[in-house]
Formats: sequence, structure tokens, C-alpha cells
Amino acid sequence: MEKIMIKTFEEPELQDPVLVCGLPGIGNVGKITADYFIDKLKMKKLAEIYSEYLPPQVFISNNIIHLVRETIYYKKTGKKNDLIFLTGDFQGTTQEGQYEMSYAVLEWLKKYKITSIYTLGGYSVGRIVEKPRVLAAVSDKKLIKPLMRNGAVFPEGEPSGGIVGSAGLILGMGMEMFSINGACLMGETSGYFADPKSAREIITVLSKALKTRISLNDIDQKTKQLEDITEKMKQEAMNKNSKEDLNYFG
Amino acid sequence: MEKIMIKTFEEPELQDPVLVCGLPGIGNVGKITADYFIDKLKMKKLAEIYSEYLPPQVFISNNIIHLVRETIYYKKTGKKNDLIFLTGDFQGTTQEGQYEMSYAVLEWLKKYKITSIYTLGGYSVGRIVEKPRVLAAVSDKKLIKPLMRNGAVFPEGEPSGGIVGSAGLILGMGMEMFSINGACLMGETSGYFADPKSAREIITVLSKALKTRISLNDIDQKTKQLEDITEKMKQEAMNKNSKEDLNYFG
Amino acid sequence: MEKIMIKTFEEPELQDPVLVCGLPGIGNVGKITADYFIDKLKMKKLAEIYSEYLPPQVFISNNIIHLVRETIYYKKTGKKNDLIFLTGDFQGTTQEGQYEMSYAVLEWLKKYKITSIYTLGGYSVGRIVEKPRVLAAVSDKKLIKPLMRNGAVFPEGEPSGGIVGSAGLILGMGMEMFSINGACLMGETSGYFADPKSAREIITVLSKALKTRISLNDIDQKTKQLEDITEKMKQEAMNKNSKEDLNYFG
Amino acid sequence: MEKIMIKTFEEPELQDPVLVCGLPGIGNVGKITADYFIDKLKMKKLAEIYSEYLPPQVFISNNIIHLVRETIYYKKTGKKNDLIFLTGDFQGTTQEGQYEMSYAVLEWLKKYKITSIYTLGGYSVGRIVEKPRVLAAVSDKKLIKPLMRNGAVFPEGEPSGGIVGSAGLILGMGMEMFSINGACLMGETSGYFADPKSAREIITVLSKALKTRISLNDIDQKTKQLEDITEKMKQEAMNKNSKEDLNYFG
Repeated sequence: MEKIMIKTFEEPELQDPVLVCGLPGIGNVGKITADYFIDKLKMKKLAEIYSEYLPPQVFISNNIIHLVRETIYYKKTGKKNDLIFLTGDFQGTTQEGQYEMSYAVLEWLKKYKITSIYTLGGYSVGRIVEKPRVLAAVSDKKLIKPLMRNGAVFPEGEPSGGIVGSAGLILGMGMEMFSINGACLMGETSGYFADPKSAREIITVLSKALKTRISLNDIDQKTKQLEDITEKMKQEAMNKNSKEDLNYFG
Repeated sequence: MEKIMIKTFEEPELQDPVLVCGLPGIGNVGKITADYFIDKLKMKKLAEIYSEYLPPQVFISNNIIHLVRETIYYKKTGKKNDLIFLTGDFQGTTQEGQYEMSYAVLEWLKKYKITSIYTLGGYSVGRIVEKPRVLAAVSDKKLIKPLMRNGAVFPEGEPSGGIVGSAGLILGMGMEMFSINGACLMGETSGYFADPKSAREIITVLSKALKTRISLNDIDQKTKQLEDITEKMKQEAMNKNSKEDLNYFG
Repeated sequence: MEKIMIKTFEEPELQDPVLVCGLPGIGNVGKITADYFIDKLKMKKLAEIYSEYLPPQVFISNNIIHLVRETIYYKKTGKKNDLIFLTGDFQGTTQEGQYEMSYAVLEWLKKYKITSIYTLGGYSVGRIVEKPRVLAAVSDKKLIKPLMRNGAVFPEGEPSGGIVGSAGLILGMGMEMFSINGACLMGETSGYFADPKSAREIITVLSKALKTRISLNDIDQKTKQLEDITEKMKQEAMNKNSKEDLNYFG
Repeated sequence: MEKIMIKTFEEPELQDPVLVCGLPGIGNVGKITADYFIDKLKMKKLAEIYSEYLPPQVFISNNIIHLVRETIYYKKTGKKNDLIFLTGDFQGTTQEGQYEMSYAVLEWLKKYKITSIYTLGGYSVGRIVEKPRVLAAVSDKKLIKPLMRNGAVFPEGEPSGGIVGSAGLILGMGMEMFSINGACLMGETSGYFADPKSAREIITVLSKALKTRISLNDIDQKTKQLEDITEKMKQEAMNKNSKEDLNYFG
């Protein structure tokens, strides 16, 4: 079999499209963000990607199986730049898979003449963050100022280990092999659970960068739910500690 | 060498064959079931598959070596659907091997125009089950009702992790890449040992689905043997505990 | 690069050659045996095999580096069967490497029309064996009787796990893909160290099977050295225990 | 994608060039040495190598991403031998990657008719070394005497395990597959941290071997910094011990 099989759904004409990549990763921040845009902007399916670089697995939903995949969506905005979004069930699971799948997406999208790239990810800080920052790194320094105006920050020396996985590779290969510039937006997250609050901050920055209005109601609601759950867990932990204290003196 | 080598034994004309896949896995339930049909229906060998995706190993039986393989059998039923069964010594051992071997089987079987697929497996529940259920998932919702009539169950959200390995892939790739629909039948099993009792339940459902009569005597006997052994082990454990209790008071 | 590169040294005309394979493995028994024949029979180099399936490593001997390899030797015996021996620094290190390298050797040797194959290995029994047996498994039952006459044993159900690695694969692939029959000779060994004593027993069986006289002096000497060392270690352990006993009472 | 992509920057005419390889490894000694020459001799970039054998990662420097790579530099010396240096962010991360990347470099450099090769590495001794030796191994014994005159040592049986990784492979493949001779220079190092002191000793030997004058000021300064740090750490450890002693008596 071909190691990567791309099934085309439509062949739209797109104007100077911008590519946004949000695959599963730290805090699932990139995927939550991408899925939110795809849903809110009612994007259409452009292609599905099956590959032996993904786990040998099907998911089950309503008793129906679903072979794991990555999916490309598009949106004709009627403005300067149309949009192409990449999301999926998994990133490539091996080093080779990471390179091959990132390259295959960029190669397949050549016909659409992508003008710039945003890759999305989480930046694990190991503690719960009250107000997550959106860190950015770029492949062309001209992109720094506009992104700062949109709310991204560029702290010196962070993330110190660089960017590992598809968020780094698609940007790096886009730059070196396809001459497309872009940025990686990384939302601060504890890294302990799927983090809509961090995704919310990226959505804010990205919607400005893409000049696309997008309602934050639903993501705010998800964030609220998560905060209620964590607050409740905190309370329970405190109650438990108090009781233990009482027991201690009892 | 070719990564997958298929040695053809016969080239029969088959009528609208149904493919059944039972490779080693959880509780060996799929393989026990497939081997039982192959034996009881006196199926004939269609092909052998050697591959570097299988362990680098030979088995020894009566001092004669046997290079590990997967094997395809067939049965002309004289009814609406002839049968093709896939079983083997191992599943592909790597992610790539899982995809490539599943694809190679489907590709090689193209000439027989498979009409539907049943993949078989175990569903590990981590405890000994008195009356194992047969869970099912399908690639086309039209298949749900007939399978329920044959005794399979479709509990919501189970198995929650989807289906990993060839039982998932052959079904998923059959659907997405070969446009063949089908179902996966999963017998509940503790997951601690090879489980004929769970296989027995799949045999019952599958023989109805395939409209094939098959005697359950031999599998009942194997199940009985297993139950005698586990009963004996339970007794020994209880006796040991009683003695320890006596010792404690002695 | 080609994944396997074979450098030819000579192109002799060989008469009905028998292939013997002794690569590193359990107790290094196969390699010790093969190296002993190559040395004693003053075999000539037929080919060297370099491959990315071997470790990325050079050895150093007398300050000169040596890229790791497998090597094929030959011997014109002047009798019914000439000899071809395969030995090397390593077996292929991955499952794919095991298959590809075994296949490549058999494929490359096609021109010499190998008439039968002996693969050599150790059979780990987890304890020091006074008189190691030579177990055998064959790809054609006609080979059992002659090998029993030469001193090999065919115990039922041993080795129970089959044969893993090149000793199994070259025999199994020789049988299924090249229609060459043969046997695997496995010397019992503790598995704790390189075991010339076990190799000695294989040398005895193999020299009869190959109808080749070979002096056992040097291997007997090596065995003696090993036994002296292990005897000394045993004494030291006993002395130490005695002293500890004295201390205990002192 | 091609598994290894080489981007050419210049196509200079070089006279009998010598290849020097210093990739990351034990104590980073090889890379520190190569980077020092590249910097001090103001070498020019010949080519960049991207590959799926390198980690799927970008580094970030001044907020700009940098796809990980290996890089080839050159220097026209105006003397008998021009110079080509290989360095990089990583070695190939798998066994296959080690072989393929080493081979690709040698194959790509064929047009420059390399006359000899020096590979650089660290030799881990597990303790801090006052005066690190530079051990050497060669692919042609004619190279031993000149290297001894330049300060390298050839102790019998060291390193006992041979040379693992690109420093071994490029030398071994250069010898067996490209008929180019050369030497590996290994600086003794603790193996616990990046070791400029060990690199300094290789720089001394290599600059003589390459008949190239190179100032040692900057590497001496780095070594001094490292020694100051380790000295300070030693003092702190001693002070801590003294205090603990006082506490003990206090």
C-alpha cells in the first residue's frame, strides 16, 4: 500500500489560502483550536489522509467504526485569504511518520499555493495557569510585530527545547523546502488534561491574525465547565484534608 | 525480498464470498473461532503468507520446522455465499506491518470480489465472565439489526478505546479503501488465557450470520476442560487458605 | 545506499555445495563452531556482507578499524559436496533485518545451487551441562535418521518455543522459498557465556554429517581452559563461604 | 519525501580536500572541535542536509525557528589540501539513519575526490581527566606513525568496544565502500558534560595533522570557565561537608 493515502473530496478554487495546522498534542490545545474554527466557520472537507504512520486502530461511534485519519478542511472567506485547516485523530507516531506526513500535506497542498502557515500547539508549564499566554515563534522575523499586536508574546529563550512534532516540522519544512513562511502559536497549559482555556487564548490571537470574527461563547462555556470540575476537586481535596485533621485530633 | 510473499495453492471460482478474519489476539478468541470453522467445515488452503512483518521464527512440530505464516482457506458452500477464512501464527508485529498485511490480504482477495467481512477478536474485561457477550461494531448501520437478531449486542460506548490491530484495520480499510462493509465480533474474555468459552459464543453468532450449521460439541468439550481446570485451581486455592487459617489458629 | 551490500572476492566453481550458517547467538555456539571449521579447513573468502541491518559500529584490532560484517567462506573438498560457510560479527538486529539478510544470502548463493543447509545455534537450558546434547530439527523428515546416526537427538517438544533468529529463518526460508532442505543443530548451553564445550559437540555431529575429518584438539583445549576457570571460580566461592562460616562462629 | 535532502550552497573547485567529521556525541567533543575550526577558519557553507533520520524538531533562536540539520562547510587553504568539515545538530537517530546519512555524505562528496578522512569523537572514561589523551584508530596502518608524531596515542585494546556511531561508520564506510583511508581521533572525557578541555587536545592534534595554524585562545578560555565552575562546585561541596562536620560536633 502507499504509506500515505490522500482521498480528495473537493477541488475548490481558493484565493491565497492560509494553512492552519492543529493536530493532537500537549493539552490537545492545537486540535481543540482547529476543531473550534472548523465547526464555527462551517468548513468543508477537502481531503482525508489515511496512513500506516497512524496507529492501527478504528474508533467506534454509535456502533459505527471510523478508521483513524487526518482531515483537511477549507473555507472560502470572500476576503483576502481563504482558509485551509488540518486536524486529525493522531500525529504520525514515528520520527519517519512525522516527517513523511508533514511533507505529504505540504506537497499535496502545493496546487493551492499556500501563502502562509500557522501551526498550533500547547506549551507545557507543569502547573495550572490562571491567564495562559500565547507564545509564538516564526520563520520570518517580519511576522513578529504583527503577531505581538494580535496578542502573542515572544519571550527570549522560550520554549528552550524548540518545538517537537508536527507543529514544528510543518513550519520548518514549509520554510526550508516549500519557501512558505509562518508562525507557531503555543498556548500555555499545565499539560495534565485537555485544556480549552489555553485553546481560547490561541483562538483569540489566531482569529485576529486571520482577520476572522469568531464567537467565543462555546469555548468559554467549555472552559467554565472545566473550571467548575477542577474547583470541585479542589474543594473535595480540602474537605478531605480537614477531616483528616479532625481525625488526627479526634 | 518482497516484504509480503503470498504463495497461491488453488484458484477456485467462488460465489460472492464472505471474508472472515480470526488472527491471534486477546484471549486468542478470534483465532480459536476461525480455526474451529476451518476444521469443522474441512476448508481447503487457498494461500500462505510469509512476511518480514511476522517474527523471525520457525515453530517445530514432530521435529519438523514450520516458518511462521498467515494462511487463507476457502469453502464452497453451495449456498448464496462461499466462505474465505484468514488465520495465522501471528498478526503483523509493527504498526506498519499491521497496515501492510491487512492491505495485502484485501488487495490479493480483490479477484474473488468479497461481498462482506467479519473480523473476530476478544474484548478484555479483566475478570472471568460467566456468560460472555458478543459485542459488535459495524461499518454500515444496516448491519446492526441482523446481527442483533443473531445474538450480538451493541452496547453504547463499548469498547471505548475502539478496536486495535487487524480486527479493526481489515474492517476499516475494507470500508475506506475497498468499499466492502462488514462487522467486528468481539467475545468478552478475562484476557488472562486462551478462552474457548468466549470463542463458543462468537461461533454461535457467526454460524447464524453465515447461515452455516456447525456442531458445538468439540468447543463445548474444550470449554468444559477449561472450566474443570479453573474449578480445580479455585478449590486448591480455597483448601490452601483453609489450611493457612488452621495454621493461624494452630 | 543499498540496504545490503555484498562484495564478491572469488567466483569458484563449486560442486553440490552444502551451506553451513553459524552466526553469533546463544552461548555463541553457532559462531564458535563455524569459525572452527573455517580455521581448521583453511577456507577461502567468497564474499563480505555490509548492511544497515548490522549495528553502526567498527571494531578495532591492532589499532586498525574493521567495519562490522558477515562473511561467506568456501572450501573445495574434492569429495561429493563442497562447503560454504556463513559467519559474521552480528545477526541482523531487527525483525526486518533478520528476514532481509537471511533472504539476501540465500538469493546470492542461488548461482552455487546449494544442495542442503545446516544452521547452528545454542539451546539455552539455564544451567551448566556436563555433557551437552545436540538437538536437531529438520525441514524434511528424511533427514532425521541420518542425523540421529551422527549423534544428534530429536526429543519430542524441544525446543518448545521453536527457533528464533537466523538459524531458524535461513532454514525456514530455504525450505519455503528456495526449496532447499536442511537441519538446525542446537548445542545445549547454560546461556551464561561463550560455550566451546557445547560447540565441540556440534563440531562432532557436523563433521560426521559433512563427512569431513576435523581435529578436536584446539576446541578441547579451549573447553579445558573454560572448565579450569569455572572450577577456580567454584573453589573461590566455596572458600569464601567457608570463611564466612568461620566468621560466623568466630 | 526523499529520506535525505541535500541543499547545495556553492560548487567550489577544491584541491585534494580532507574531510573532517565532528557530529554531536560523547562529551560533544567532536562537535566542539569541528565548530571551533569552522569558526576560526571562517569556513563557507557548502551544503545543508535535512532528513527524516533526524529528530522531528525545530530549534528556536531569537524567536526564529531552525529546522534541525547537518551542515557541510569548506575552506580553500591555498596549500596542499583544502578542507571540508561536517557538523550538525544531531547524528542520525536510528541504526538505518546512521548508515544512510554517513553513506549519503560520502556519496555526495564523491565529486570533490576526498583524499582522507578524520572523524572526531569523545572517549568516555567515567571520571574527570586532568590531561585528556587523544586516542586514535586508523583504516590504514601507514597513518599510525604520523599521527603519533602529532600527539595521538594508540593504546593496545582501547577503546575495547570499537567505535559506535557516525565517527566509526564514516571511517569504516569510507574505507570499505569509497576506498578512502583515514583516522578517528577520540578525546578522553568524563562523559558527564560538554567537554571543551578534551576538544582542545583534539584541536591540537588535528591542526598539526591538517598543517593548519589555529589559535587556542578561545578554547582555552572556555576550558578555564568550565574549570572555574567545577572548582567552585567542588569548594561548595567541601564547605557543605565541613559544616555538616561542625553540626555533627555542635
